[in-house]
Amino acid sequence: MSTSYSPVVGGDGSSRLDPREARQPLLPSLDRPASPRFLQDRFRRPYQLRQYVMPCIGVSFLALFLFLTVNSTLHPPPVGPGRRTALELATGNILSDLQGDSIVWDRLAEMTDLFGPRISGGESLERSIDWMMTMMTQEDNLMVWTEKVQVDVWERNEESLELLLPSRPPVPLPMLGLGGSVATAGGNGSIEAEVLVVQDVEELMKLGNETISGKIVLFDDDNWKHYGDSVKSRVYGAREAERFGAVGVLVRSVTPFSLGVPHAGSMLGANIPAAAITVEDSQYIRRVWERHGKADHSASPFAHLFEIPKGATSRNIIAEIPGRSRPEDIIVLGGHIDSWDVGTGAMDDAAGFFAAWHALRAISHLKEPPLRTIRVVGWVAEERGQFGAKAYAKKHAAEIPHHIFAMESDTGVFQPWGLSVTGSEEAVDYLSAAGQHYLGHIGAGNITSSDSSGADVAPLCQEGVPCASFLSLDPITQESPLDSGLDGYFYYHHTRADTVAALKPKELALASAAMGIWAYLVAEMVQSLPRDDKADA
Amino acid sequence: MSTSYSPVVGGDGSSRLDPREARQPLLPSLDRPASPRFLQDRFRRPYQLRQYVMPCIGVSFLALFLFLTVNSTLHPPPVGPGRRTALELATGNILSDLQGDSIVWDRLAEMTDLFGPRISGGESLERSIDWMMTMMTQEDNLMVWTEKVQVDVWERNEESLELLLPSRPPVPLPMLGLGGSVATAGGNGSIEAEVLVVQDVEELMKLGNETISGKIVLFDDDNWKHYGDSVKSRVYGAREAERFGAVGVLVRSVTPFSLGVPHAGSMLGANIPAAAITVEDSQYIRRVWERHGKADHSASPFAHLFEIPKGATSRNIIAEIPGRSRPEDIIVLGGHIDSWDVGTGAMDDAAGFFAAWHALRAISHLKEPPLRTIRVVGWVAEERGQFGAKAYAKKHAAEIPHHIFAMESDTGVFQPWGLSVTGSEEAVDYLSAAGQHYLGHIGAGNITSSDSSGADVAPLCQEGVPCASFLSLDPITQESPLDSGLDGYFYYHHTRADTVAALKPKELALASAAMGIWAYLVAEMVQSLPRDDKADA
Ligand SMILES: [Zn+2]
Ligand SMILES: [Zn+2]
Repeated sequence: MSTSYSPVVGGDGSSRLDPREARQPLLPSLDRPASPRFLQDRFRRPYQLRQYVMPCIGVSFLALFLFLTVNSTLHPPPVGPGRRTALELATGNILSDLQGDSIVWDRLAEMTDLFGPRISGGESLERSIDWMMTMMTQEDNLMVWTEKVQVDVWERNEESLELLLPSRPPVPLPMLGLGGSVATAGGNGSIEAEVLVVQDVEELMKLGNETISGKIVLFDDDNWKHYGDSVKSRVYGAREAERFGAVGVLVRSVTPFSLGVPHAGSMLGANIPAAAITVEDSQYIRRVWERHGKADHSASPFAHLFEIPKGATSRNIIAEIPGRSRPEDIIVLGGHIDSWDVGTGAMDDAAGFFAAWHALRAISHLKEPPLRTIRVVGWVAEERGQFGAKAYAKKHAAEIPHHIFAMESDTGVFQPWGLSVTGSEEAVDYLSAAGQHYLGHIGAGNITSSDSSGADVAPLCQEGVPCASFLSLDPITQESPLDSGLDGYFYYHHTRADTVAALKPKELALASAAMGIWAYLVAEMVQSLPRDDKADA
Repeated sequence: MSTSYSPVVGGDGSSRLDPREARQPLLPSLDRPASPRFLQDRFRRPYQLRQYVMPCIGVSFLALFLFLTVNSTLHPPPVGPGRRTALELATGNILSDLQGDSIVWDRLAEMTDLFGPRISGGESLERSIDWMMTMMTQEDNLMVWTEKVQVDVWERNEESLELLLPSRPPVPLPMLGLGGSVATAGGNGSIEAEVLVVQDVEELMKLGNETISGKIVLFDDDNWKHYGDSVKSRVYGAREAERFGAVGVLVRSVTPFSLGVPHAGSMLGANIPAAAITVEDSQYIRRVWERHGKADHSASPFAHLFEIPKGATSRNIIAEIPGRSRPEDIIVLGGHIDSWDVGTGAMDDAAGFFAAWHALRAISHLKEPPLRTIRVVGWVAEERGQFGAKAYAKKHAAEIPHHIFAMESDTGVFQPWGLSVTGSEEAVDYLSAAGQHYLGHIGAGNITSSDSSGADVAPLCQEGVPCASFLSLDPITQESPLDSGLDGYFYYHHTRADTVAALKPKELALASAAMGIWAYLVAEMVQSLPRDDKADA
């Protein structure tokens, strides 16, 4: 379930004298920040409070005086009294360090232009990592190191697909073998078989072996709701179709909008090959199939697609600024540095890592380090199964209880909106108050809560670390992610169109600043962001 | 210049008692329809009229009686008194014949699915024509014939393009050789040369031979205003670059939005090869070029692209319903039946022809034929140089003085909006009044005037025939074509994404009905739509 909060604090950093709040300073004592529970009530029940307070709107000067005195401990309450000004100064500096500078986009363009996409196990990923390490150490003077990660290797070779129809010459269909797919007949053969069209795995299950056996099954899921729903055919389709004797699988590309380009992605293991085709071609095959009662042949779907049967070694990138007084407490932010092998993966997810990196860079320019350690992680091999995330969690197992917050950006970096938070209600409430106060004026302080976290922070969240996914406005419609379901991101997702051209310098700069401010605010809290007790238990 | 008119007549076909109009029936005599000049004044100066009439709002019953009596002769005045009810009945029948029926889309899908794209001189075009002829005669009982057209043949064969960079393996770039381009080195060779990036032909002209000679020139026009402006590099680029010794030309695809797909199109003759690349790759090459001061090599741009040095014979399709009392007077509507060789050309422009065809089919279901002849033309080889349009004008030269109106649809068939009219002011005014009255209620009765006509009706307009381009709302934004410049159409234009999936059954049905109603209204006028005297002169 998702919840959003209404702003109560003015976006310019000043407090509005809301009559609802005038009475509240009397409740908590002066010597400790307001408890998250209290904040939660303030944010969750504004209307009840309003009814209660409205009759007393002729508030006494004493109450007003007390309010002004203690207000700074209350909303938002990242630290104790007296720190407000320093926090506002620091977050303002992070913003002005990045805003109006195109460095994030320029560097992202340069790296992706130089080396192209970065599939796990490939040479271009390693060269990209070297390039980033050089920039981070020599240009940015950051403390950086890499940590080895054992990754699977899956490589696309030549692949092709043709639709055989009686009415026209073989129709070549653009295709992308799914990540992890086996090749046809050991990498040399081809498949020619009738196509059977189903809506999704559910519909497949209703058919019997005699219908499915020997066929190439096309999953033409034409009911886009959101990515998580539509992706199921791609992930589970081949495994399920194989059980009924199918010889291959085609999947309609997972996207709400298509201009004739297939979308790559991963699948669960199966011994039959599987590939994505364009939305248009999927609809085409379904029409032919419905019109003639049977599908025509699909030929050579995956000639020469193969998996190299060995692993490779790659690297996570770690950069950090040690905390000035609690260095053992760690705030993590980052994105994954690998990509699929089409386009250049500038959006998914170099942008996420670059935004985090340059957030750290801006923080490194502040007068003093943050109270806690801020660490940027570039996870490798996310697309092939979160190898980097698992390696990080394993290597840093002893530190996980000291991970205060883990924030990931892996849904595109556009005009920043806020965070989707997985964690305790207290953490959600704290971030909501802090976001409205310190990021509301650039529209980037919104919070929604979610049961599911991003893939790379998941191993941390499972151990009770409060987690967040960094969210932007929809890049096509400019809608809130709560309204758009990130649809615009999926126009580009895992396609040839995922290049730096899908990103805007100004948005990238602002989003990087917002990520830095979120991390800095959590790093500066007097009390640590509360962990999720349910996950801990 | 474009003009749009405000509706004065109610969209449901009934007259609103607008005080502005209550006085007007006194002006024209009862025995003739209002002159277009008078209507023009009514539509152009509503506010002056309002000021004049408002003091007299207590209108006498006599004036009101006269108004009600003569109103039907006034707005809109397609025919003499008494015909209103029959016209409303007939246009209502055309609408209900098509609305809610998916036949247009279903047939369009079937044909394009069966035969694919229809490039001039190709087998699939001829098979598509045969299929349409069969449907029109056997299924629809229309009077149909074909007329031979000699067309140029240009065929795409294998073609490929690679960018050679020091930092990564050769980058294959999706490409489409431009229609009419010569091949590299007679069809067998390849070109490897440095790339020179310019904005447009204008910038090219400022450079000298020593800069351009031996290079592959990339026209990266990044300033999209509208198609007619951006297309110039594609059309003239190679011819101009050749003059300065360039060895090849690349052109950024002409589109306001890209998801990594190149857009085909024609070019003016040159002896160096030219191809379109994607927007993303064009930006990529420009960045590399700006960063390093020089461009890297672009290799083998057009291997095996060649032109078969002979013509072929194809066919225009002509279908008509002879007029019941003035069969020599002809109203023409149609679209072009050829396409480029990518996607299936369902949008550009099978949809235009199918909408016209099914408009005629609906008119053929009326109780009696229209007063004048309504003729549907499927022009062939538009994309290769309007061979069909020229052949039609030549073969029907003697009939052109009797062509009353020529309407073409070649900018996509989506939610119908109205017409862009080229012709006399009187014709514009008449169509404006008629459109608001008979098509206003479905939003399809808008008129704008334009100096330039569609390509296939141009030979008729040049002889003074009032011409119109049928326009729809933008398929992406649903904006009026006056606001969007048809941008959404160009997302799909000349790409692999131009398939029936870009069209909607309901919109296609409604647009077909609107085309039929426009044609029927002009066919039923008592006086013929005035010709353009300037063009005649
Ligand atoms: Zn990702
Ligand atoms: Zn066209």
